[in-house]
Amino acid sequence: MSVTLAKRDHGGDLDRAKRIYGAGDWLDLSTGINPVPYPVPALPASAWTALPVAEDMAALLAAARAAYATNASVVALAGAQAAIQIVPRLRAPGKARVLAPTYNEHGAALHAQGWDVTEVATLQELAGADLAVLVNPNNPDGQRHDPAQLLRLAGRVGLLVVDESFADPEPQLSLAPLLGEGTPNLLVLRSFGKFYGLAGLRLGFALAEARLAAKIAALAGPWAVSGPAIAIGQAALGDHDWQARTRQRLDLDALRLDRAAASAGWQLVGGTPLFRTYEVGDARAAQKRLARSRIWTRIFPYAPGWLRLGLPGNEAGWQRLETALAGKGE
Amino acid sequence: MSVTLAKRDHGGDLDRAKRIYGAGDWLDLSTGINPVPYPVPALPASAWTALPVAEDMAALLAAARAAYATNASVVALAGAQAAIQIVPRLRAPGKARVLAPTYNEHGAALHAQGWDVTEVATLQELAGADLAVLVNPNNPDGQRHDPAQLLRLAGRVGLLVVDESFADPEPQLSLAPLLGEGTPNLLVLRSFGKFYGLAGLRLGFALAEARLAAKIAALAGPWAVSGPAIAIGQAALGDHDWQARTRQRLDLDALRLDRAAASAGWQLVGGTPLFRTYEVGDARAAQKRLARSRIWTRIFPYAPGWLRLGLPGNEAGWQRLETALAGKGE
Repeated sequence: MSVTLAKRDHGGDLDRAKRIYGAGDWLDLSTGINPVPYPVPALPASAWTALPVAEDMAALLAAARAAYATNASVVALAGAQAAIQIVPRLRAPGKARVLAPTYNEHGAALHAQGWDVTEVATLQELAGADLAVLVNPNNPDGQRHDPAQLLRLAGRVGLLVVDESFADPEPQLSLAPLLGEGTPNLLVLRSFGKFYGLAGLRLGFALAEARLAAKIAALAGPWAVSGPAIAIGQAALGDHDWQARTRQRLDLDALRLDRAAASAGWQLVGGTPLFRTYEVGDARAAQKRLARSRIWTRIFPYAPGWLRLGLPGNEAGWQRLETALAGKGE
Repeated sequence: MSVTLAKRDHGGDLDRAKRIYGAGDWLDLSTGINPVPYPVPALPASAWTALPVAEDMAALLAAARAAYATNASVVALAGAQAAIQIVPRLRAPGKARVLAPTYNEHGAALHAQGWDVTEVATLQELAGADLAVLVNPNNPDGQRHDPAQLLRLAGRVGLLVVDESFADPEPQLSLAPLLGEGTPNLLVLRSFGKFYGLAGLRLGFALAEARLAAKIAALAGPWAVSGPAIAIGQAALGDHDWQARTRQRLDLDALRLDRAAASAGWQLVGGTPLFRTYEVGDARAAQKRLARSRIWTRIFPYAPGWLRLGLPGNEAGWQRLETALAGKGE
């Protein structure tokens, strides 16, 4: 199956919902962003006024290495998306394979940079590619891959890119601890904004052995990350208590979402603690029904039965969703 | 003269000053960033938590178009530097010429992306290049070019890139009002952080006709600018009173700096209201002497007599500088 560039719609398109269904007090569940963000700390004036200095960047990267339990080289970027834009430039364009269905920007960015992109349905089919991409755990279906198995796969592709944008709640899934000198063709991408609930900050990381990391840093150029992102990222990645509490809360909230979905007769396709994807029959109709309660969700052009929901961030949101799903919102 | 990649040092390297001369209460004059920043307004929580939405981006771009007095298409990027990283990818690598001496990242980024880069000393020598870059007004020597003359030059190069990072205090220098359908091979870059004193925010703009702008936006990818940058940029670019007051203050402060420099026997090479470059004899010695007063300045490997200074941001800073320059700081 080849990449259809017309389908680059995203979650987070609440302005589209407002255009179609009108303004109002929307509950935006169209993304997988943690709705209980890391509290933004007071920032030194220099975070805004000065060009970021090496000392602060070094502190951010040290916090990231600890949070991701890795000894690999880490490059800070303006979001995982910025890493996705750079991936196609790490090698001369050739044959790329993407484990699908998944986040559509990977294939789109590769295609735009001249790669011949094929979507494949199994891990095994990635072997032999010049560049292979998978998301672990996957968005939107929550498919999971054993890091040891991915390490073996890396031996059979030119460059293996593992997007761990949703891995923070499940550190055991991460390849980050296994990265190093012995994995020159393995690149792990991490998103900061999703787990820490600060997607507007634009912060993400590329993890790799030193030479590959240096190439990524050079392509990103100097000062690719803002002063506020450096300061807040350092605080949040270093706050292991908040991380543990958040993992626990996300696990419980995901269960609560599954119960609400079951009350509507929906079947879980899969997900992560940050979002859940359900088989709902007619997803477009379900999205429309929820939109009448000012709840915005995500549908997928390739799976007409799938509806993806993020987590409400407060009790009022939960009750609005639970009422709507139990059919009482009609 | 060909580009020497080893010379990619920058201003804003205060951590280097601290390593060499020790910590303390440094007055950093090594950049051309306005030291009296636009006051950061209170931000809505969504600026931090949500992915930037199209509506807010549209408001930022409208404010930018008004501030830059242009009807051209405008692309927001994470700093003028992000635009510099994209420029080499707008055309297949060929012969690039850079009007030198100038900001070293232009030549370095082109060279890194496979361009054959030549530095030239006059505007006339840019004609015939596949891609030509100049900075107006120029950093560090303050050289200025008439926009009408640049418009004519655009007819004689493949793509003309005019970096107006320091043009905000002198709107009459800008090509932005002349951009449009008739200038398909003209690209104007604007920095937000310098004039508004918020370099940590990472915001800049590319101005061009619609097709070239669309190509730049596609290469940058989605969500290239942070939520805080969108919100603050919109407020600052729309605050025409602050802009007028700041232009006035910068003009006066530049005169004050020139007087202090004259007291040290320095000759003005040139500059803009955001920085001044002086012929000081032995610039390395002058930098060292000021560093003993914890004042950090910028020297240039290609001009051993040139010292560049930004403006102090408060009276204490001015007095420290004036004392040091009058020799009373010894």
